[in-house]
Amino acid sequence: MTNLVRSLPHPADFPAPPSDPDRARWAEADAAARPTRLRRLRDRMSAAGIDAYFGIRSEHMRYLTGFALDDGEEKVAGNSGRFVVAAEEVVVLADSRYRLQATAQASGARIENMTYDLAAFWPNLVKSVGARRVAVESALVSHQLWGQLQAAAPDVELVEAVGWIEADRAVKEPAEVERIRAACAIADRALAAIVRRVKPGQTERELALALEWEIRTGGADALAFGIACLAGANAALPHGSPSSSEVHIGQVLLFDFGATVDSYRSDMTRTLFVGEPNPRDVAIYEIVAAAQAASIARLDAALCGEQAVPSGREADAAARKVIEDAGQGEHFGHGTGHGIGLATHELPSLSRAAGDDPLPSPTVFSVEPGIYLDGITGVRIEDLVLFDQGRTAVETLTGFPRHILSVGV
Amino acid sequence: MTNLVRSLPHPADFPAPPSDPDRARWAEADAAARPTRLRRLRDRMSAAGIDAYFGIRSEHMRYLTGFALDDGEEKVAGNSGRFVVAAEEVVVLADSRYRLQATAQASGARIENMTYDLAAFWPNLVKSVGARRVAVESALVSHQLWGQLQAAAPDVELVEAVGWIEADRAVKEPAEVERIRAACAIADRALAAIVRRVKPGQTERELALALEWEIRTGGADALAFGIACLAGANAALPHGSPSSSEVHIGQVLLFDFGATVDSYRSDMTRTLFVGEPNPRDVAIYEIVAAAQAASIARLDAALCGEQAVPSGREADAAARKVIEDAGQGEHFGHGTGHGIGLATHELPSLSRAAGDDPLPSPTVFSVEPGIYLDGITGVRIEDLVLFDQGRTAVETLTGFPRHILSVGV
Repeated sequence: MTNLVRSLPHPADFPAPPSDPDRARWAEADAAARPTRLRRLRDRMSAAGIDAYFGIRSEHMRYLTGFALDDGEEKVAGNSGRFVVAAEEVVVLADSRYRLQATAQASGARIENMTYDLAAFWPNLVKSVGARRVAVESALVSHQLWGQLQAAAPDVELVEAVGWIEADRAVKEPAEVERIRAACAIADRALAAIVRRVKPGQTERELALALEWEIRTGGADALAFGIACLAGANAALPHGSPSSSEVHIGQVLLFDFGATVDSYRSDMTRTLFVGEPNPRDVAIYEIVAAAQAASIARLDAALCGEQAVPSGREADAAARKVIEDAGQGEHFGHGTGHGIGLATHELPSLSRAAGDDPLPSPTVFSVEPGIYLDGITGVRIEDLVLFDQGRTAVETLTGFPRHILSVGV
Repeated sequence: MTNLVRSLPHPADFPAPPSDPDRARWAEADAAARPTRLRRLRDRMSAAGIDAYFGIRSEHMRYLTGFALDDGEEKVAGNSGRFVVAAEEVVVLADSRYRLQATAQASGARIENMTYDLAAFWPNLVKSVGARRVAVESALVSHQLWGQLQAAAPDVELVEAVGWIEADRAVKEPAEVERIRAACAIADRALAAIVRRVKPGQTERELALALEWEIRTGGADALAFGIACLAGANAALPHGSPSSSEVHIGQVLLFDFGATVDSYRSDMTRTLFVGEPNPRDVAIYEIVAAAQAASIARLDAALCGEQAVPSGREADAAARKVIEDAGQGEHFGHGTGHGIGLATHELPSLSRAAGDDPLPSPTVFSVEPGIYLDGITGVRIEDLVLFDQGRTAVETLTGFPRHILSVGV
């Protein structure tokens, strides 16, 4: 128990929320970066003999055009927010509900008013940009819509495009990193406020709602995703939702959450101890902490030139080996990390299934090993790190301390 | 101004939030209804010569299996929650993160642990249920996944299935209506709490957050969707998000929002007046209110036997005619209403594009005409109604008053 620290962090330990000038600077940076982002896509199009790219993923739209839909809004937006990038032009579809917003945000694009029936409009749309071979986001466009577009304009060839913009988005611009860093600080501050208020007898749901309130009144535009707040055996459910279970002395208390700032997200997990930590939980915690440190050490070794830049598979293996060596390998079912930015989960992936390519740079991802004992307990520690070959060590963007912390007493 | 009412509704005017026994009763009702829901799908499968149905829409999974994902969780759930209905069996896919939850909720189903690679698992999956012709939700399955499944088991025929379960879900069971009614009451209570606290100078965002807090601490499991709170000219954006604009005397103040209770949703819009109403806004409000009343009168005429059951197009036309006759037709760009239940937007549709089939029964939908003057003002009034041919009039599930209401003074 030598690592047990009783002094709790304070919200003022972390940077203040972003200011209006910060937000103005980011908007300018996006506008300045958009031509480069579009050029990379157009280079890829040229190389593949493609005249136009038809996109429907809302993060791609935000990245390439500036038009931003809120989370969940795609479900009711119909065709609004879908877009076409051609050699000379960007077209954003927006029905009457979204026209003013799209005009203001997607300042470089032609805004096309859309009815619900995209297929009926498709022949004119592709003709208006002079396209004969169109790359379509086939991992997102439904099989039904693909068939409808093909039937509507049989002389226009549809080409499956998967992962083109995802790969570009994995490499982060400085102003993108700034926003992720700001989202991390808001999450840090919010958790620092909450750990001082945890009391045994509160429910997971109450604590999750209190944390959400701190995030959303603390400078975030939104949550990055629904908060997981899981106590005791519930923490063995890596993606469980908060329940009406009460938090008790002797349990672990796991929070997995993040903030959104100007469409960019953070993601962090802390596993706290309610009252005096259970030695079994502490032993697991120390394995997980060592696994996280091993993965980060492998990344640092690449940045200071001692080792080659690892693939996502190697960065995962560094953490996984520690957990396997401790005999807990079968209780770590998920990957070690994921990229983050406009989406909570994006490239690169740190997992057994990740490829052999070296990690991109500069990029931001989570390092989040965990051990889950069904029906007993669970521990995960998650930080975001900036991996940048222009530096000599990773920067940990999550500021909240990661030592053993006792709350609720 | 004869309609102006200064006395504000009070939260206690509306039914109390659901109790634990209510929730237990709903869980039992779902379990009891599931065999009937599955039988309808299997009848459809038999008629089409289909051995198995592969579904990915999360509302369908909730409806047919009981396994419920939170909003937005599909984005990180991978294949978890996808399901297969065969003649004798239901299979739910769930990776290690979701296994315990799926086992508890989808009690009648076989739970299959899934890796990320559905295509690799597909041949065994279809073989395990003895399927050769599989209906696939082609409006939701990506073109890429369709091709992967086809390639993985070339001897298994994939058949496009669109709208099968959607049509069944449009007809509501009594316990489904109960939950929508409970979600409406939570929303009514929350708005009644907020209208007493509106003060000029508050921002749209502050008011939206305060309303959200009332809903989520007032018995709801979640919001049905992100709250729209729009003041003055912003109300002309039918789906705008709340901004940092301040609310001023003389403006309209539009709230569009809903609650979720046990996966069922409500949806309501009220356009309030801050201080003394502007005569221009009142004139528009009265046209919108008359349009809403006309659509509901058309529905009542069907229920009491004076007229045939209208199609969604006819129910829309009844409201639209009032707005067109008032010379505002071009300022009412959206449909008059949409079905609601497990999804915020589902069948039936009340719109110009809706078909000629008579409305289903019993069913629940919104009636929500609006008039939007770009850069000037906007008014929408939205109630949910229960249309049930076993009754002599529609039941308005939204309880909040719909007369002209002045707030903030």
